[in-house]
Amino acid sequence: MLTDGGDGEPGRERALIERIRRRLASAPAWVRVGIGDDAAVLEPERNRLDVLTTDTLVEGVHWDSRFCSPGDVGHKSLAVNLSDIAAMGATPRAALLSMAIPSHLTDDTAGFIDPFIDALAGAAAEARVAIVGGNLTSTPGPLAITVTLTGSVHPRRILTRAGGSPGDHLYVTGTIGTAAAGLLWLKEHPMASEPDDPSLTICVRQYRRPAARVRAGELVGRNRAAAACMDLSDGFADAVRQVAEASGTGARVEGEALPIEPGAAAEFRRHQLEPLRAAVGGGDDYELLFAVSPRQRRAFEGLRGSLRGLALTRVGELTQGPDLVLRATSGGPDEPLPAGYSHF
Amino acid sequence: MLTDGGDGEPGRERALIERIRRRLASAPAWVRVGIGDDAAVLEPERNRLDVLTTDTLVEGVHWDSRFCSPGDVGHKSLAVNLSDIAAMGATPRAALLSMAIPSHLTDDTAGFIDPFIDALAGAAAEARVAIVGGNLTSTPGPLAITVTLTGSVHPRRILTRAGGSPGDHLYVTGTIGTAAAGLLWLKEHPMASEPDDPSLTICVRQYRRPAARVRAGELVGRNRAAAACMDLSDGFADAVRQVAEASGTGARVEGEALPIEPGAAAEFRRHQLEPLRAAVGGGDDYELLFAVSPRQRRAFEGLRGSLRGLALTRVGELTQGPDLVLRATSGGPDEPLPAGYSHF
Repeated sequence: MLTDGGDGEPGRERALIERIRRRLASAPAWVRVGIGDDAAVLEPERNRLDVLTTDTLVEGVHWDSRFCSPGDVGHKSLAVNLSDIAAMGATPRAALLSMAIPSHLTDDTAGFIDPFIDALAGAAAEARVAIVGGNLTSTPGPLAITVTLTGSVHPRRILTRAGGSPGDHLYVTGTIGTAAAGLLWLKEHPMASEPDDPSLTICVRQYRRPAARVRAGELVGRNRAAAACMDLSDGFADAVRQVAEASGTGARVEGEALPIEPGAAAEFRRHQLEPLRAAVGGGDDYELLFAVSPRQRRAFEGLRGSLRGLALTRVGELTQGPDLVLRATSGGPDEPLPAGYSHF
Repeated sequence: MLTDGGDGEPGRERALIERIRRRLASAPAWVRVGIGDDAAVLEPERNRLDVLTTDTLVEGVHWDSRFCSPGDVGHKSLAVNLSDIAAMGATPRAALLSMAIPSHLTDDTAGFIDPFIDALAGAAAEARVAIVGGNLTSTPGPLAITVTLTGSVHPRRILTRAGGSPGDHLYVTGTIGTAAAGLLWLKEHPMASEPDDPSLTICVRQYRRPAARVRAGELVGRNRAAAACMDLSDGFADAVRQVAEASGTGARVEGEALPIEPGAAAEFRRHQLEPLRAAVGGGDDYELLFAVSPRQRRAFEGLRGSLRGLALTRVGELTQGPDLVLRATSGGPDEPLPAGYSHF
């Protein structure tokens, strides 16, 4: 760990592991055994529960190399997991990196492996995550990256999807549909680096290097300021649906309240998409959706000052019904919340 | 968790997750949040360290579907990780399953997913491992399976590769070269289920469904009966090399002492391979190599009675050297320990 998976050339794999190890920060003292043994050994945090998540990104499914750089992929492979840990109200801690690598990428360590690892290591350092092991193997197929991330959380501060109740307000961090709009632009401009419009540039950057809301999840968990939480990796509509289903409630979303980047709305319109519904259905936003009970509202709203400018927007509420509805305009009719999301 | 990775059809992925969840044992009480949320939440064991490992298996690299059944792959995807946890002297605890699945397999849940999960769940139940989450995604490439396994170990009972000293005896569990011989036979008889020769049948079964030495690793760790340990996933020669390098020693292996299944030796000979060197170089044996110091020998040998018939064979010793040597016949000359292994 990192250990080489059977590709018949342990010497070469070991050289690659060593190359990766040298680019990573040295391990903190609570890592008793790190990269290079059969498994990693970590000191747990006292009086905390262990949190554990994993996500796999596959080239051609989760990213397109025409417009995502090796660094973008390295950043994102950790960010998607940070987002899961944040959604539990937990603090991220240690990561394992497992890669199934096609030979043209192992042949080009300076072009792919180095910038990939540097961005992953940068995202890890920013989130105070130690990379403690993993696995490398060859593959005849596309690059597949699996990051497993651990975290720790106080037993009474866990945020699940299931804690909501009718009457809870729904809040979302940041903006929605942002990454989807960025992706629309990138598909049409694969060779261009960034758009001229600064608001659309925000969208493109959010797609390429999503900022997981680690601090927001942690703060809300620590202050027990929400009843339920989920991240928006599969889109806002999906998150509302999952939180409502797990909580045994319905939900009403107020369309006019939804925080949509102006550049995203313009980009959706350019593609003949209705901005509201496109933003609600779009995936790959690593924002957090919170259900906040009436008695938590003051504490929740009070966290704004600690979030370094990250927006927290009230976007609706959980309801008695089983229905999931979108009220596009205030006073207007309810319509069913769009079902799907289109990831790629 | 299990969560669906972006394939644009969350409904279908969720149905697959639900199908998998129904085939798994219900979670023990220490799993506070299991499959179905953003991350799993586990109660740690008191006064223990966390152990963490991950391994990826790729179709066409780590197995050949002409002679490995979906059940074989399910069993093996956990076993390779159990072996890593055992090699640390730790007790396995919780697993995450991440799969990148080509569409022909998601279309054939009864033919692939069900038997795969049943065998994985069977191996997990036998090792008292809870499957607490994971990730599913589609892939245009071959099936890739990443299992992450946690374990727990008492702080003073960790076995690393680095604890050996000159004069320590080397012991190995079970037999070596067994899986490599089984693979040789399977490559020539992909359609046949098992060979006629019972000793060769042992080899084929060991290749298809390796028995990780969970109990041996745990017992040796608990009794502090060894100074260093590593599993033989990349072959016996590789394990000796890694333990010696990590411990800053050399090693001498006594060829005549090596435990080689008669059916394996015969199969190697049929392929014009010298049995001793083929067994030493062959990979995919999930046995354990231990370095045992003089003052640990009595305790180590005393564990035989608790190992339910699993062989523990003394096969050599760590030396001052940096040299890694094989003495093929007792009294004969030393030769360099074969370097490589051939996994596939």
